[in-house]
Amino acid sequence: MSSICAVLAKEETLQEDQRKPTFDFKSYMLQKANSVNKALDAAVSLKEPAKIHESMRYSLLAGGKRVRPVLCLAACDLVGGSESMALPAACAVEMIHTMSLMHDDLPCMDNDDLRRGKPTNHIVFGEDVAVLAGDALLSFAFEHVAVSTIHVSPLRIVRAIGELAKAIGAEGLVAGQVVDICSEGLSEVGLEQLEFIHVHKTAKLLEGAVVLGAILGGGTDEEVEKLRKYAITPSHANLFASCCLPKGLISSFLNLSWARWAAITNRPLLETLKQLIGEPSMRF
Amino acid sequence: MSSICAVLAKEETLQEDQRKPTFDFKSYMLQKANSVNKALDAAVSLKEPAKIHESMRYSLLAGGKRVRPVLCLAACDLVGGSESMALPAACAVEMIHTMSLMHDDLPCMDNDDLRRGKPTNHIVFGEDVAVLAGDALLSFAFEHVAVSTIHVSPLRIVRAIGELAKAIGAEGLVAGQVVDICSEGLSEVGLEQLEFIHVHKTAKLLEGAVVLGAILGGGTDEEVEKLRKYAITPSHANLFASCCLPKGLISSFLNLSWARWAAITNRPLLETLKQLIGEPSMRF
Repeated sequence: MSSICAVLAKEETLQEDQRKPTFDFKSYMLQKANSVNKALDAAVSLKEPAKIHESMRYSLLAGGKRVRPVLCLAACDLVGGSESMALPAACAVEMIHTMSLMHDDLPCMDNDDLRRGKPTNHIVFGEDVAVLAGDALLSFAFEHVAVSTIHVSPLRIVRAIGELAKAIGAEGLVAGQVVDICSEGLSEVGLEQLEFIHVHKTAKLLEGAVVLGAILGGGTDEEVEKLRKYAITPSHANLFASCCLPKGLISSFLNLSWARWAAITNRPLLETLKQLIGEPSMRF
Repeated sequence: MSSICAVLAKEETLQEDQRKPTFDFKSYMLQKANSVNKALDAAVSLKEPAKIHESMRYSLLAGGKRVRPVLCLAACDLVGGSESMALPAACAVEMIHTMSLMHDDLPCMDNDDLRRGKPTNHIVFGEDVAVLAGDALLSFAFEHVAVSTIHVSPLRIVRAIGELAKAIGAEGLVAGQVVDICSEGLSEVGLEQLEFIHVHKTAKLLEGAVVLGAILGGGTDEEVEKLRKYAITPSHANLFASCCLPKGLISSFLNLSWARWAAITNRPLLETLKQLIGEPSMRF
């Protein structure tokens, strides 16, 4: 009797597998980015004082591929969490990414007039408001995770907030920016220093996005740490792809990280993440 | 027998009361400010990249009366908590206060060359580093509360983080700064607008400091809300004291708030808080 049940169960599983639609990377990306866009629009609504909220919304809703928040949602999905658990954190990561671009574009930093084909924030709202709107987005990112995260234990929320802050601060994103500034004008910048800049300026927040998703989605400590390792390597490799390594080296670097990643899971979401990071159009 | 016990207990209490030293406001202030200074020095240590940490430490450890962190510790004390519960939050509040001054001093904002008798951060480290060091202090404030708070439930830590973020963002400190900027050059600024600026630019973070201390110290919801009301009124009054109201009005405003405050508690700490806010040398 038990063997008949086992056979039936196996058949049922097979049928289920056959019914499963082929995973469509592009529609997954679009659907998740759409959720993020709606959530960002609702989270930073237009209220008083109007000028600061207009400035925050101008840069936050100016498009962008939403790679970081989608990575956050995908990692949450991967460990078995639901979208709502990680959506505020996904938005927070995008708020922080936007804030870093706004401050990076300032005349005292990169002095950029255009961002995503539009005038930069300080060109439209003035330098003073651009500085303040960045500060407001940074603090609101933490408020949003603390206040709007649902169906997650406070212990996990506190842990996620600690990880998010670490990804941005003087040992994260800001560290990369400041070493970048200090390297300007130098006749030679070593590979080690270049690596430090890229890892901190970009990879740390990508790592943070993945780790936050895994923590909030209920991942075990082992899953969180495996995902952290995964996040570091390909995002790191992808950075090199866009700046300094010859093509051959990049692909072997990427393959190494996919091999590690494949050892963690063989679920369809692997394809998402692989494509998300590997696709040239999805460069960070 | 029970009545003898009661008499003995009463006598013991009386003896204890007699043994209790007179409350010394100045030594209380110094002792708490000393704890805060030591904790700030340890929290933001000098590590790599050196430049950003030097810049953060330069402004953070440049003196200052530590009014906000002492208010935070005093509120924690008042609801029966121990210093260690609120010390990371007290430091976080000071980090945020410092960061707001650093960004406020920038050439695109108030363009100040001196702060507390020393060259401002951007004069010493450059505008780019001053912007980034402010960002790093802001994010580290949240990291510090999330990672270093001990003997407090994660639920209370999450609540405190939400309150702290709200005190700073587009509905808190930043709101005051942006309305202040928008008022510059106007021929007339109404009392309502002036009130909005001061309440948001200064009182919101003072309120946040008190509320954080009460939450982390284990205060009941009622205690937290009573302390919030207390924090709003005198800090508000004190702001008026330093800018626009005639002397007589200030003292009746302050008396009103002390009366409210006295209704909450008659413990010696009342004296601390009263003096802390009322003393002219303790102006925020």
